[in-house]
Amino acid sequence: MTTPHVRLGVIGAGFVGRALVQMLDDDSRQVALVDGATATLELVGVAVRDLTTVREGVDSSLLTDDPLSLAARDDVDILVELAGGIEPARTWIETALRRGASVVTANKTLMADCGTELAQLAHENGADLLYEASVAGGIPIIRALRTSLAGEKINRVMGIVNGTTNFILSQMTSEGRDYADALKEAQALGYAEADPTADVEAFDAAAKVQILSSLAIGTALHGEPILREGISKVRSVDVDYARRAGYVIKLIGVVERVGEHGLSRRTHPALIPIDHPLAAVHGAMNAVFIEGDRSGPLMWLGQGAGGEPTASAVLGDVLHAARNRVNGRHDVPFTVDDRLLSVDSGDLSSVFYLSIDVRDEPGVLAQVAGVFGRHNVSIQSMEQSGFGQEARLSFLTHVALTRDVTATLHELDLLVSVDSIGACIRVIDGGGA
Amino acid sequence: MTTPHVRLGVIGAGFVGRALVQMLDDDSRQVALVDGATATLELVGVAVRDLTTVREGVDSSLLTDDPLSLAARDDVDILVELAGGIEPARTWIETALRRGASVVTANKTLMADCGTELAQLAHENGADLLYEASVAGGIPIIRALRTSLAGEKINRVMGIVNGTTNFILSQMTSEGRDYADALKEAQALGYAEADPTADVEAFDAAAKVQILSSLAIGTALHGEPILREGISKVRSVDVDYARRAGYVIKLIGVVERVGEHGLSRRTHPALIPIDHPLAAVHGAMNAVFIEGDRSGPLMWLGQGAGGEPTASAVLGDVLHAARNRVNGRHDVPFTVDDRLLSVDSGDLSSVFYLSIDVRDEPGVLAQVAGVFGRHNVSIQSMEQSGFGQEARLSFLTHVALTRDVTATLHELDLLVSVDSIGACIRVIDGGGA
Repeated sequence: MTTPHVRLGVIGAGFVGRALVQMLDDDSRQVALVDGATATLELVGVAVRDLTTVREGVDSSLLTDDPLSLAARDDVDILVELAGGIEPARTWIETALRRGASVVTANKTLMADCGTELAQLAHENGADLLYEASVAGGIPIIRALRTSLAGEKINRVMGIVNGTTNFILSQMTSEGRDYADALKEAQALGYAEADPTADVEAFDAAAKVQILSSLAIGTALHGEPILREGISKVRSVDVDYARRAGYVIKLIGVVERVGEHGLSRRTHPALIPIDHPLAAVHGAMNAVFIEGDRSGPLMWLGQGAGGEPTASAVLGDVLHAARNRVNGRHDVPFTVDDRLLSVDSGDLSSVFYLSIDVRDEPGVLAQVAGVFGRHNVSIQSMEQSGFGQEARLSFLTHVALTRDVTATLHELDLLVSVDSIGACIRVIDGGGA
Repeated sequence: MTTPHVRLGVIGAGFVGRALVQMLDDDSRQVALVDGATATLELVGVAVRDLTTVREGVDSSLLTDDPLSLAARDDVDILVELAGGIEPARTWIETALRRGASVVTANKTLMADCGTELAQLAHENGADLLYEASVAGGIPIIRALRTSLAGEKINRVMGIVNGTTNFILSQMTSEGRDYADALKEAQALGYAEADPTADVEAFDAAAKVQILSSLAIGTALHGEPILREGISKVRSVDVDYARRAGYVIKLIGVVERVGEHGLSRRTHPALIPIDHPLAAVHGAMNAVFIEGDRSGPLMWLGQGAGGEPTASAVLGDVLHAARNRVNGRHDVPFTVDDRLLSVDSGDLSSVFYLSIDVRDEPGVLAQVAGVFGRHNVSIQSMEQSGFGQEARLSFLTHVALTRDVTATLHELDLLVSVDSIGACIRVIDGGGA
């Protein structure tokens, strides 16, 4: 029996693209690659923006500056898209899928924006659209959700899916830095962009929540908004309070079933109990923690970014797409549960950590406690720290409705004795971990 | 197009078998199961030891007390073996494989003993032999190694793959119990057997190391012994020393490449740096930590035992086997790298923690240090604690050859001033985590 042959075209020769080409060329791994692909793999073209730049390790005869033509080439069985962004990446991918080629992409923006439509297009054309590297970089979480856990009802997914913010919060926790210093350090080390908005305001994490919920878990809510709160308002005093209370602050992305047909999708900072597996995810690492109905808690941890880890995830997809082609099949999208409804975040219950700066004068605490009581928010613990005329009140609530907590803070903000609301951060329960 | 139909036979209706039957029967999951299997699944028989026992949730008309006949039945497409042990499980599995049925098993003893031969038999008959639940219970690690990471060169696998010993060591660490007390607690909670030998002397962990190395990673060393050291000699003073030095003690199973063609397979207690992800694996949880050449560090964490988590892993395998049958294919075993040679543990280098009880008299430390020096074992740090006539010397070495450390301890044991060697435990480096 002759070994089947599968041909690849790659768009993009940055860190990820070059690492992928090196992995494909590695002589010592050829037996494993043929085993994994059940085929020999051949790289037939690499599209780059600028042909004059030297790309170490990439055969220059393979280079082209016309990605659209590469996507359209009949002899490209699998197109690997590593350019990013919505357009023209979407057009390239659609071009390849329409002629029945499979596509592997690391493009989180595109997959969050129109992944469901592209997956449908792939299915209609008997092709695969694989996107393991779009969430949590080198961690093979999407294939696990779609294969090993296909029979499992997933009740909650909580992910640390943005390395930049996890690095910043880790620095604030372990080194006692404030937010601005930790951000500068992250920028100096190349973990954060000059304009860090996409990371620190959680746009990146929200895109990954979108992909996890709609593509990996199979919900149909891709049009609905995702609650998004970033980390730029997290202060050293909050990190310190969390530590004293037995927590660390992490930015998490959450997809959670609520009741029979409700689904909450959100990303926000949270106090995580120090003995929860997510609390041990340090620096720029990523992790995805899952609560399955029967499997119980499961966590995956690994590098969320970087050329080689991302290329490793892309290669896993390439081998999977190649195996499918050899067998004349493709992965079929999940049946979407279209009874699921997005739950308003106000209707969700949680423990909250609240921090309020007040004037240090008699009767203030009674006034503040009265406001909590009127809105049915019950207090689990309170800590007061004074600074001359000022005092900071830090509260852990009992489980409370988010809309009640919001109303409480609104009314507190109107009190003359309250200078400012410093923090309102959700607290994650132990959750069976 | 009609949906294909796949028929299952299950041997064993204990915790795992009953949880599996419940998952297959769960009305709310039928759409997901058909999606995952690309087929409807039908349970056609359940073999039990004693037909008179009532099995809640299992249709009594499906029961049989003749597992061999169930394995031989033409209308069983996938046989699920949950009985355990070598024989007669091996005969049942061979019977099913020989007629081309696929087999899903949770049987670690059998897979460690003859998994390679059974995998070959499956391949020759165009069938699958899947065994996700045999290592780390509910954690889908084997499929990840065989699919997503098929293109990745795995340099080291370190697993906490025995929940009993991890519970005992966690109790010793967090509650300050000694080994005997922690073992009693584990027995009272049902985490440890009345005869705990298989767990505490690491026979169970060694079987999982065997499966990980030969079946999941594809080495051919199934005849060669695995270095095995248990936890029964770990003392409270070792746990305390580890904590002061920034480590926790865990029983780990290791599969490690050494040089170009060397492979080390072993299970033993180890000091793990407190900020290593494995250090945060508490209680009866399991975890597998992998160092891939390109992926970097990756870790999976979850429940290593229990009916429902194990059944969840079995169900993942059932869906995979069903998909393969629908597509007329089966998973092909890895090409085994038969150049790999087992490395003698004496040739391995490591940092060691050593604890020696000595007479507290002048000159002892110089004598002891002299022995270290003669065997080229260099000392990183030393701590002396005195108790009247006695003193305990605790050392962290620099990286040293295991055979040199063994020779050092041999010679120390002969000194009149040395009462006993208390501990010799390997220390794991940070390892890029």
